[in-house]
Amino acid sequence: MQISKGVEWAVHAAALLNGLPAGRGLKAEALARYHGVPAPYMAKQMQALSKAGITRSSRGAHGGYRLARPADQISLWDITAAVDGKGPAFRCTEIRQNGPCGLKPKDCKKACQIAAAFAAAERAFRESLAVISLADIAGQVVDDASPEHLTAIMQWLGKEAEPLSDSQS
Amino acid sequence: MQISKGVEWAVHAAALLNGLPAGRGLKAEALARYHGVPAPYMAKQMQALSKAGITRSSRGAHGGYRLARPADQISLWDITAAVDGKGPAFRCTEIRQNGPCGLKPKDCKKACQIAAAFAAAERAFRESLAVISLADIAGQVVDDASPEHLTAIMQWLGKEAEPLSDSQS
Repeated sequence: MQISKGVEWAVHAAALLNGLPAGRGLKAEALARYHGVPAPYMAKQMQALSKAGITRSSRGAHGGYRLARPADQISLWDITAAVDGKGPAFRCTEIRQNGPCGLKPKDCKKACQIAAAFAAAERAFRESLAVISLADIAGQVVDDASPEHLTAIMQWLGKEAEPLSDSQS
Repeated sequence: MQISKGVEWAVHAAALLNGLPAGRGLKAEALARYHGVPAPYMAKQMQALSKAGITRSSRGAHGGYRLARPADQISLWDITAAVDGKGPAFRCTEIRQNGPCGLKPKDCKKACQIAAAFAAAERAFRESLAVISLADIAGQVVDDASPEHLTAIMQWLGKEAEPLSDSQS
């Protein structure tokens, strides 16, 4: 089973956006630099988050990303689904209908037991991520960080955060 | 998130092996034909199951696969891990150590909260599959099948199953 690498980047980036002062945003390029990852790939994840309504972006000289809603209303599942898709990890191809003893489509109205078992497991995975919010993650990061590290992050954000031209806050 | 297509094939094939009479086996080619899928790819999944100790194979003219232990001792997680690997789906690359505010390795002895959250979700997925055995799946298939369909499967198995030259049973 594989989760796209972009999910890790997107969760870290969203957690950083949670530390922004009101009315400020961060460009994808700055998010990439902060995390030491390639800018085009970080930009791709941020576009996926915006498309899913998790972040908002404003364009132009004072463009940048910020969270579109409070961090306690954004779950790790929201971010995973935005970047990696909501589709099932186990894709049933109905092979029970194949071959010399294949079932007829009319006898396959009930989901295959194998597909149903994987769907239940994926539901357990999803529900586990859905109860953890970005606020939970950010809170744990703050709890674990030294005062010097938190100061360094806030100073970096103060220097890099752009005032958003279309900000309502 | 994606699960390898081979997992579906391997679970269906293992469920069919459970229907074999004692001392008989099925060649990968017959398993592929039964499921209407390409033989080389089915052979690959069967090799993975054998490597993991889920199936046993005997070679030669009377070669074939059979389950290596009772179906109630083979879980869907066993088969998934055999085909798709046991490694984490979320691969933490420690990006918290990157960039201008990166943590030092000595400050990263505790797992990143983000990686820990995904590890917990994957544990939930794994545990959900670990409590469903191949015997459960086979029992449900039998419960749902018509008598005519079960007869057709048993007739096909009777025709295709090979006596195993190294069988102990």
